[in-house]
Amino acid sequence: MATDLAAVGKQFADYYYQTFDGNRANLGPLYRDFSMLTFEGAPIQGTTNILEKLTSLPFQTVKHMVSTMDVQPSTDGKILVLVTGMLKVDDSPNPLAYNQVFHLVPEGTTYFVLNDIFRLNLA
Amino acid sequence: MATDLAAVGKQFADYYYQTFDGNRANLGPLYRDFSMLTFEGAPIQGTTNILEKLTSLPFQTVKHMVSTMDVQPSTDGKILVLVTGMLKVDDSPNPLAYNQVFHLVPEGTTYFVLNDIFRLNLA
Repeated sequence: MATDLAAVGKQFADYYYQTFDGNRANLGPLYRDFSMLTFEGAPIQGTTNILEKLTSLPFQTVKHMVSTMDVQPSTDGKILVLVTGMLKVDDSPNPLAYNQVFHLVPEGTTYFVLNDIFRLNLA
Repeated sequence: MATDLAAVGKQFADYYYQTFDGNRANLGPLYRDFSMLTFEGAPIQGTTNILEKLTSLPFQTVKHMVSTMDVQPSTDGKILVLVTGMLKVDDSPNPLAYNQVFHLVPEGTTYFVLNDIFRLNLA
């Protein structure tokens, strides 16, 4: 179990951050109209609003580097993923530490995002 | 909705960390035999194993200080909580940054922990 879940979590995170760093407007298919994103404390719901938020973030380029990823089964085939990592935006020399939780719901052979919580670590 | 959930999340986190910092052996009632804890990457399941892990952590005293807490509804009344904070152990002068996810399941008038993922931020 643990191995399969870890593989699913990794596959999701790889795809998510590759897409985010490539063209974050393409993240739409991962969300639904009832999906929730809390971004630095701001609650946002639904694919349209989430994409609007993500594509309006004030940087041109971003690169996420995952440091740790923990995966647990939730209920009814859902999966909980906690990612910690670093991200670099534009020409900033200093990476920022972040953490992000995804709650993924199985749908056919893939998963969509029900819950998404993102926080920078500003300690 | 958001307000109530935030209050529930805060009440839970306050109780959890007060109990953890006071006598973490008393956290047992928050877990069930199918509850999962991933502690710094180590997967642990069930109240007994979780308590054994928490009470065997190599420090005598610990104090958690919550920096941020984000709460979202999950499915069927469940609640997802992401906490970021700092903790101090024993006489160490340097607090450690951590983050922790809880997935809480309603039961009567209270909640138990289905999923618990803990990570120090060692960046």
